[in-house]
Amino acid sequence: MSNQAAAVIDFEKNGGVIPVIAQDHASRRVLMLAYMNREAFLETLATGRACYFSRTRNALWRKGEESGNFQIVREIRIDCDNDTVLLMVEQRGDGAACHKGFESCFHTKAAEGNWQVVEERLVDPAKYGASYGRHEKPRGKAE
Amino acid sequence: MSNQAAAVIDFEKNGGVIPVIAQDHASRRVLMLAYMNREAFLETLATGRACYFSRTRNALWRKGEESGNFQIVREIRIDCDNDTVLLMVEQRGDGAACHKGFESCFHTKAAEGNWQVVEERLVDPAKYGASYGRHEKPRGKAE
Repeated sequence: MSNQAAAVIDFEKNGGVIPVIAQDHASRRVLMLAYMNREAFLETLATGRACYFSRTRNALWRKGEESGNFQIVREIRIDCDNDTVLLMVEQRGDGAACHKGFESCFHTKAAEGNWQVVEERLVDPAKYGASYGRHEKPRGKAE
Repeated sequence: MSNQAAAVIDFEKNGGVIPVIAQDHASRRVLMLAYMNREAFLETLATGRACYFSRTRNALWRKGEESGNFQIVREIRIDCDNDTVLLMVEQRGDGAACHKGFESCFHTKAAEGNWQVVEERLVDPAKYGASYGRHEKPRGKAE
């Protein structure tokens, strides 16, 4: 994997970034959706750990750098339009992909006319320090 | 489910549309990523079938309208930022979510320095007629 693989990806279609789905490689649980620019994709390839791009901070977001909740990349897939990537990952650390301490960012379900949180938090993200969330995700996981 | 649920979704963050992941409810296979505007989300709620928004055609995209490969929505989840939706679906018709005739749009894997198709096509999309693909997906599934 190299620039050759990155060259296939249509980063320009969406202003330089593509949506990236992270899925647990074993349970197949969808953990989160974030974004990558070309540099983040290449770093992910080089290190084998998920590196995203924060659109709000306009900077690389090395997932787990603060919390230890990093993601080991087991497989990378691209869709038929070459504009979306699917990562099959091992979620390390506390097992929480979500910056709110849940396994998955998708812990809220449509039910009875509204949205309901239907899972338990794995960890209190306060343990990662006062700057966590603001620093890693100023407005949320994909930012 | 109603406007109340739709009101929570942050459509404006990304210019009126949100990314939507469709996942097979039984196998947990990720099938595709497309987009919805508020109208597509409300129609999906009302009908129980996935309705996306084509950014290229600037129109609703009733998945399966031409091919019969529609998606019955079994569960709807939203992420912690309220800007991405996950649909758990039953993929009907020929079982092909991908407009190229594969079960999943993510049938291409990073391997040996490049991308390789690693799955068999379920169906030849030519069976859906000459306008299929151009009409439903002028530049690909998420369009």
